[in-house]
Amino acid sequence: MSIAAASPVIILVRPQMAENIGMAARAMANFGLAELRLVAPRDGWPPADEGPKGMTQAAAGATHVLDALAVFDRLEDAVGDLNYLFATTARERGQAKPVHLPQEGMALAAGRVASGQRVGILFGPERTGLENDEIALADSVLTFPVDPAFSSLNLAQAVLLVSYAWVNARGAVAAPFSLPHNTGPARRETLLSFFAFLDDALERAGFFQGARAPVMRRNFRNIIHRMEPTEQDIRTLRGALVALITGGRGNNRGGDAVSRSGEEG
Amino acid sequence: MSIAAASPVIILVRPQMAENIGMAARAMANFGLAELRLVAPRDGWPPADEGPKGMTQAAAGATHVLDALAVFDRLEDAVGDLNYLFATTARERGQAKPVHLPQEGMALAAGRVASGQRVGILFGPERTGLENDEIALADSVLTFPVDPAFSSLNLAQAVLLVSYAWVNARGAVAAPFSLPHNTGPARRETLLSFFAFLDDALERAGFFQGARAPVMRRNFRNIIHRMEPTEQDIRTLRGALVALITGGRGNNRGGDAVSRSGEEG
Repeated sequence: MSIAAASPVIILVRPQMAENIGMAARAMANFGLAELRLVAPRDGWPPADEGPKGMTQAAAGATHVLDALAVFDRLEDAVGDLNYLFATTARERGQAKPVHLPQEGMALAAGRVASGQRVGILFGPERTGLENDEIALADSVLTFPVDPAFSSLNLAQAVLLVSYAWVNARGAVAAPFSLPHNTGPARRETLLSFFAFLDDALERAGFFQGARAPVMRRNFRNIIHRMEPTEQDIRTLRGALVALITGGRGNNRGGDAVSRSGEEG
Repeated sequence: MSIAAASPVIILVRPQMAENIGMAARAMANFGLAELRLVAPRDGWPPADEGPKGMTQAAAGATHVLDALAVFDRLEDAVGDLNYLFATTARERGQAKPVHLPQEGMALAAGRVASGQRVGILFGPERTGLENDEIALADSVLTFPVDPAFSSLNLAQAVLLVSYAWVNARGAVAAPFSLPHNTGPARRETLLSFFAFLDDALERAGFFQGARAPVMRRNFRNIIHRMEPTEQDIRTLRGALVALITGGRGNNRGGDAVSRSGEEG
């Protein structure tokens, strides 16, 4: 099964604004969806409005989605090859169908897609949404947990949420990056050596006085632990402290450590 | 604590397009976020571009967010009252910070907000994203599980995903509507009576013949059960079948049942 066949088909029914078609294509591409269908776009096909806010500009490079897009005159023709259909609606439409939020709906879709079914998701026109007869063609309704006081979602925003929920439901969710690999937590011996250095330096500076000295030492240790410092962090801190203690006159290696630490960022 | 104080603050750093400010306000309003701050918007304040694609039109009625918006010259001034800051980035920026996806990040935010902390989320300019020195002011990085081959999220789309993740993390997620209340599952006696009617009608029509008749009866029962029919569904089906059997000449009450069922949708 190709990647396209293994993801839901996004179907925009009578979309009005070319810019929203482009933004929807961009949102799909952000989350790996590839198959877009249009039913009777208001301004014909290809859309006349290709000015600065036109479809292609709004797609921001998601040309593979626009190039593969299919246009149909009738909704029935756009869904003929699909096994399961969701209809997105913003409000109660009085139809006796199961109602899903994006995450549970896309979990259901993922199960069907995994068993070889083709799933489609219908989105209505910007101002009016899907007509009741169009909703009646779907197996279930997909809606969004919007604030009831402000429930009007932009068309491309709705496509984005469904695409995002799809990626989450598919279970292949990973951040595209994480903490840099060279910054694991410092070894304990590095920390313990740093604590000893700190205790000694503060003792010499007359900082620890009276009965609270042990508490203050513990506080310093806890502050450092909460930073979850790396080896490099400890080298940086130690170098900075050496520079402060010596006023820049003393330990050149300390100064070197500080400037080396700057390279990490 | 007011609702605004109990939700994260969205901070757009050097936003370039007034339309994106409006779309971001709309996305926030969709999911109940109310507090928007701008740092040094490119076109000044208020934005000059208030034509057909301007900020107010793009906000599509989220005027309460725009009216309450605050503008700052410097990022430092925009975040002074906040306890915890996320920086959104699309790609690895080489900074030694925890990296969160929207859902885990907003779960973390929900815990902090619940304990009375104020949380902010930084979004960079459209073309370039946040600068490294701006990211360094944040406690952690928030990123999106985008397709690495097409990772460029629109600014307002990024605000939408974070707002949606916030609503999900807050645990107050509910569809704004569900199946209509008057459509609970049919009572068993209604189903059993319908099965008897169906068996009888098909028997009279000579449909059940040979050894497979028991299997076919069972298949009909299973088809009906899979529909999860309501009382009204069964009345509708029975009326339609009566009409078909009598060719419209017979049982007027059956015809009435069909037309009554149309009122439900």
